Amino acid sequence: MESADRQFKMKWWGWGAENVRAALSQSPATLDFLRSRLGVEGLEAPSKLRLESVRIPDSRLDGPLREKLAGIIGAENCRDDHRERVLHSVGKGYKDLVRLRQLELDKATDVVVYPRNEVEVVAILACCREMRLAVIPFGGGTSVVGGLEAEPGEQRLVVTIDLAFLNRVLGIDEISRTATVEAGIFGPELETRLSERGFTLGHFPQSFEFSTLGGWIATRSSGQNSLRYGGIDKLVESLRIVTPQGTVETLRVPRRADGPDLTQMLIGSEGAYGVIVSATVRVRPKPAAQDYWMYAFKDFRTALEAGRTLVQTGVPPALLRITDEEETVASFALGHRPARGGRALKRRFGQWLLTRKGFRPPQLSTLLVGFEGSADHNDRQRRVVRRHLSRFECVSLGRSLGRRWLATRFELPYLRDELLDNHLLIDTLETATTWSGLHPLYVAVRTAIEKAAQDQGEPIIVFTHVSHLYPDGASLYFSLLGRQKRSDPIGQWWAIKRAAGDAIRAHGAVISHHHGVGMDHRAQTGWSPIERQMLVQLKQTLDPTGIMNPGKLL
Amino acid sequence: MESADRQFKMKWWGWGAENVRAALSQSPATLDFLRSRLGVEGLEAPSKLRLESVRIPDSRLDGPLREKLAGIIGAENCRDDHRERVLHSVGKGYKDLVRLRQLELDKATDVVVYPRNEVEVVAILACCREMRLAVIPFGGGTSVVGGLEAEPGEQRLVVTIDLAFLNRVLGIDEISRTATVEAGIFGPELETRLSERGFTLGHFPQSFEFSTLGGWIATRSSGQNSLRYGGIDKLVESLRIVTPQGTVETLRVPRRADGPDLTQMLIGSEGAYGVIVSATVRVRPKPAAQDYWMYAFKDFRTALEAGRTLVQTGVPPALLRITDEEETVASFALGHRPARGGRALKRRFGQWLLTRKGFRPPQLSTLLVGFEGSADHNDRQRRVVRRHLSRFECVSLGRSLGRRWLATRFELPYLRDELLDNHLLIDTLETATTWSGLHPLYVAVRTAIEKAAQDQGEPIIVFTHVSHLYPDGASLYFSLLGRQKRSDPIGQWWAIKRAAGDAIRAHGAVISHHHGVGMDHRAQTGWSPIERQMLVQLKQTLDPTGIMNPGKLL
Repeated sequence: MESADRQFKMKWWGWGAENVRAALSQSPATLDFLRSRLGVEGLEAPSKLRLESVRIPDSRLDGPLREKLAGIIGAENCRDDHRERVLHSVGKGYKDLVRLRQLELDKATDVVVYPRNEVEVVAILACCREMRLAVIPFGGGTSVVGGLEAEPGEQRLVVTIDLAFLNRVLGIDEISRTATVEAGIFGPELETRLSERGFTLGHFPQSFEFSTLGGWIATRSSGQNSLRYGGIDKLVESLRIVTPQGTVETLRVPRRADGPDLTQMLIGSEGAYGVIVSATVRVRPKPAAQDYWMYAFKDFRTALEAGRTLVQTGVPPALLRITDEEETVASFALGHRPARGGRALKRRFGQWLLTRKGFRPPQLSTLLVGFEGSADHNDRQRRVVRRHLSRFECVSLGRSLGRRWLATRFELPYLRDELLDNHLLIDTLETATTWSGLHPLYVAVRTAIEKAAQDQGEPIIVFTHVSHLYPDGASLYFSLLGRQKRSDPIGQWWAIKRAAGDAIRAHGAVISHHHGVGMDHRAQTGWSPIERQMLVQLKQTLDPTGIMNPGKLL
Repeated sequence: MESADRQFKMKWWGWGAENVRAALSQSPATLDFLRSRLGVEGLEAPSKLRLESVRIPDSRLDGPLREKLAGIIGAENCRDDHRERVLHSVGKGYKDLVRLRQLELDKATDVVVYPRNEVEVVAILACCREMRLAVIPFGGGTSVVGGLEAEPGEQRLVVTIDLAFLNRVLGIDEISRTATVEAGIFGPELETRLSERGFTLGHFPQSFEFSTLGGWIATRSSGQNSLRYGGIDKLVESLRIVTPQGTVETLRVPRRADGPDLTQMLIGSEGAYGVIVSATVRVRPKPAAQDYWMYAFKDFRTALEAGRTLVQTGVPPALLRITDEEETVASFALGHRPARGGRALKRRFGQWLLTRKGFRPPQLSTLLVGFEGSADHNDRQRRVVRRHLSRFECVSLGRSLGRRWLATRFELPYLRDELLDNHLLIDTLETATTWSGLHPLYVAVRTAIEKAAQDQGEPIIVFTHVSHLYPDGASLYFSLLGRQKRSDPIGQWWAIKRAAGDAIRAHGAVISHHHGVGMDHRAQTGWSPIERQMLVQLKQTLDPTGIMNPGKLL
């Protein structure tokens, strides 16, 4: 089997399908932004990287083990060729892409196995347990927190289980509005299959095109429309996980009070407790219409207040998303497409209008409001939203920017590769806290990042959005953009990341709102020693010999 | 301190405040129902029970331990008098009340302690751990699943910790709409305090008047308005629990993805992991108006379909509640207040109208729909509901029955004492499953109960309502009414309960939707051996010497 059989074929060295590249260099606004803010004088040609050139340690797979694994899954599904091993040895974080571009990984998975069904997953785990191997479950491979690579110093042979074959929809219960689906299914395939029956899961993380249901559950993911549909923890009614101690399937019930919630003990287990093989998820009728509107605010703080008001009304829209001034500037610059003719005129008129009202575009904070449902429902909700927003100093920028956001919602990570080609540090990190703590946290994290970057010798631009709002609080999603410290890009990145995490912890906020812990956040979780012990004991119960994704989460 | 200091003083032998009795005997409709359905020929005078007459084993509290406990909490808060011990030795389940009426408990708590703050809770647990005592946390004392009594064969001295003094509101964050509250606060007090600031928790279980925040969290409770506000698991943002291994306070964040959900591992822990001492809960503005409407359906099945339609619209009302035909008949009979003059005329006209439309009152299934919010919001929602209901054969019974339900929502358990006085078996049990499995489960559980009752020699009436609806399923709440088997009332009850639980398990449903496990459901949880092991390991992590509420949950 070629890895090309996997439906969504990613660039091994970056984001997105191999034939899609972002067009950073074509935009004068982008060039101007990079020049004026970061001193980037000219763009370099896209780098040409050959996978064959990536140096990785030799595989330690020997004949007897190969035979054993091949006996379970068939020789063609037991892969230790260079390409498969490189593809499965890291995720898609900044650190990962930098290392790939350096054409050197100091550790790599020894063998990639593709089980065809749950029975084979069980057999593989039994084999790995018996042989004392390390096991890394692998969905779409988009972890940005070091969730997929072998732990430094791992002495055991490392087996990566790619769940690409476990991609069937096992059943849709239209009455109960649930779907039972295998964990290896990718986002678009799942939505297509649900859509055929008129449903949607409504889970659209930015990695949507390249990530899987199992990955979403394992990392406690949250989609861009979490306001309407809920994070993956709300969407999962029940799940099935193969652990070294046996298989667990939690009850398929809408709610239960027979003790602590067992399903919630497994969502977010990051492969450290077992391999999630299927889940029953709550689905909804596909909305008849989508209606997205953009509003401009003079400053982030006011936009936050407006967002809080809307989410606390009790009938929130399908999406709320707030950018701070820096992010508005950056996204206008980085996402800019030159307008011509009527559109250019319209854009100029809009800017003139904003300026007349005392706004200073593009130094704006924006609020994106999305409605999903029948046209009637959307209109009704929009009227409610408009009424609430009338209490704030803001201007509607209309539908076109909303439509554009919807159309390009998964594109941003593509840009990262172009920025990396130009030796820029580009990364994101997220946290969440209560509303009363949100702005102080925002200031503290930005300050910490800026100071750490300064200490590393390169200034950094921090831009921020809020994309998950709750009645009691919200997430903060920070993007970082600066020049790489060429002598030690990963050291520079770690220093900044650590400073951000320290500020988050100091404010009693959480180190991850939806990316998970992986290896990168292990040292900065907010668990007390007893809480850590709870998680450790659960792992020991399900994985007593510690073969499952060692070093992740815990 | 008198136990009278506790704000809500329950009858020791039944439900409700001591000076409130239900007026069963005054209603001819009730008498007629009991006579025709159960052969009850005449009502007996309310029984007169003296607490002093209840025989319990002597307390094993000795001088040195008394001194030790008194040293922590003060002598006046360390109680081993007969009254305190009887009040704290059982809950409020049928089995409990039968045993109290038999004036004999074969086991009892040895001492009741009233800590005044968290520090004292910590010290008590340390003392109990050192002395190897059994500890039972006690909130309002309304467990109906045997969550408060010592395990049969318990050899250790039993200490009950009553949290009545931990009843302060520690803080309200109006911006984030959360309140941090001590666990021993009772429902009405909590709502009063929140109400002063314009908020409500919206958590109204039937035990509301006599149960506490900590009890709700420990048993994973759900209120009658769960549709709008969510069960207690949704309402708790963070909690603080004192365990024998130390105190845990989970992060106060709206959402987190740093591994499995630690808060959800503690909600539903039933005192077996530790003593919940406080929690931060999500509150909402108190609704400006409440508007409750009753609709009649010819049969339960159609009403279920209507309920499912409403809850799956995505904008459900604040409450939906469906009674089956038996429950409608029973509640008209048991809750009947004779109408006079205009009201009697109106009632007769309504019945005539229903009959003309082919309905057979009181053989109806009813749907109660509650709206809570601004008058505008309620009107808008009611129009949406009416549009959906127009597709079903149903008749609006108007607001007055809805208003009456609201006014008497906590009254039903009061009636139980009168029925017990007449040697009737009266109990409830609940479960939950998906919509597609709901009606089959309903039939199976009813059949199992009826058969088990028949085998015990006394027929039984089973009436059912659905009071918690979710897009993917709903709860079923069964009430049982029959004649007591005088020779062995508890054996009769156990046989019926076991049969119901077996049917629930056979259908893949859950043994408890919101009452918890306690001791009564231990043998019928739907956990696999591995899931049980997960819960056992968590207990061992937090309570390695097994002092916390032994025999409950696990």
